[in-house]
Amino acid sequence: MILQTEDIEGFEQQYRRTFVNSLAGFRQAVLVGTKSVAGEPNLAIFNSLIHLGANPALFGLVSRPDTVPRDTLQNILQTKHYTLNYVSGDLFEKAHHTSARYPKGVSEFEKAGFQEDYRAGTDAPFVKEAYVKIALRLEQTIDLSINGTVLLIGSVFMVELDDAILGTDGFVHLSGENALVSQGLDAYFIPQPLGRLPYAKPKI
Amino acid sequence: MILQTEDIEGFEQQYRRTFVNSLAGFRQAVLVGTKSVAGEPNLAIFNSLIHLGANPALFGLVSRPDTVPRDTLQNILQTKHYTLNYVSGDLFEKAHHTSARYPKGVSEFEKAGFQEDYRAGTDAPFVKEAYVKIALRLEQTIDLSINGTVLLIGSVFMVELDDAILGTDGFVHLSGENALVSQGLDAYFIPQPLGRLPYAKPKI
Repeated sequence: MILQTEDIEGFEQQYRRTFVNSLAGFRQAVLVGTKSVAGEPNLAIFNSLIHLGANPALFGLVSRPDTVPRDTLQNILQTKHYTLNYVSGDLFEKAHHTSARYPKGVSEFEKAGFQEDYRAGTDAPFVKEAYVKIALRLEQTIDLSINGTVLLIGSVFMVELDDAILGTDGFVHLSGENALVSQGLDAYFIPQPLGRLPYAKPKI
Repeated sequence: MILQTEDIEGFEQQYRRTFVNSLAGFRQAVLVGTKSVAGEPNLAIFNSLIHLGANPALFGLVSRPDTVPRDTLQNILQTKHYTLNYVSGDLFEKAHHTSARYPKGVSEFEKAGFQEDYRAGTDAPFVKEAYVKIALRLEQTIDLSINGTVLLIGSVFMVELDDAILGTDGFVHLSGENALVSQGLDAYFIPQPLGRLPYAKPKI
């Protein structure tokens, strides 16, 4: 079938949200850990992580007004620090539960069944169960006026991972940990490797 | 192991690029189709698609100065139209080959072994072999001064997909087509479903 602008605009709101979100495809499921100025830990699942550059190491995170817990955004803006935590596929139900809207002061760590973990250099909480833990410092905030979303640009200042998943060429073998991948707002997957390919050279 | 800022900065350039890129995790592999003002078709693989909003349906695409073919960016800026094409995992070698740097005027469609396909409403080329075809109109360009990357914001004005993969709630079942997923610059996967979960409600 072919869907045009007017078809998509004509969809019922929840249907359209599911359609457009899932149409954007697969992405890394990330648990974002933050702490409020008052010291309350917060954990929320995001699927909008993007790689922006390797030197310096910069990641972007999109905070959408309609789908993302506002506490996370507020904590990042106030404390400048946040953590990215990757968990394996068997924890997908717990990870998804961090999207429930709890009132301020309730810890999603406790409610979803994850343990807080701390490292020197930041007050932001990590997820103990995560097989990769990344600490980010907010470098820049970009307001996308077109629809009120916010792009948070952060620099990586700490990465913790198991020696065994770091390849000799620098490649991080996330799929060896049954990495949790998401699509749309509620679908979860693990990646099945097809292979790695050499740098593509033009055919003569 | 724990890696700090200075460890990452100290990596050899290619190692760091592989490390940081792969650390960002899994994402939708997208073949971006464009046409130059002179009428030359161009096809390039991207892994930086992000969902920005459902109403209007907006997708972002990050164009990095170091890794992305400049022809694609130039064509989008000049013609305002581009296509996103999702192919299945069995085509991963062809898809990867679109990242080879061919001189202007050489078609990556031909070199990688894909067929051009056209639809009413846009001159931008689609990939005939793609199981999902999306047409986008450039709405806004955001220069990320922090490292010279460009965020292209486009609105979806046409989607073509098989009726069978559109669920009754609007969910697009991409994994039924062995969707091609990528990690870093050279690793490819297909997603294996864990399940979909109901909207997360707070535990009382």
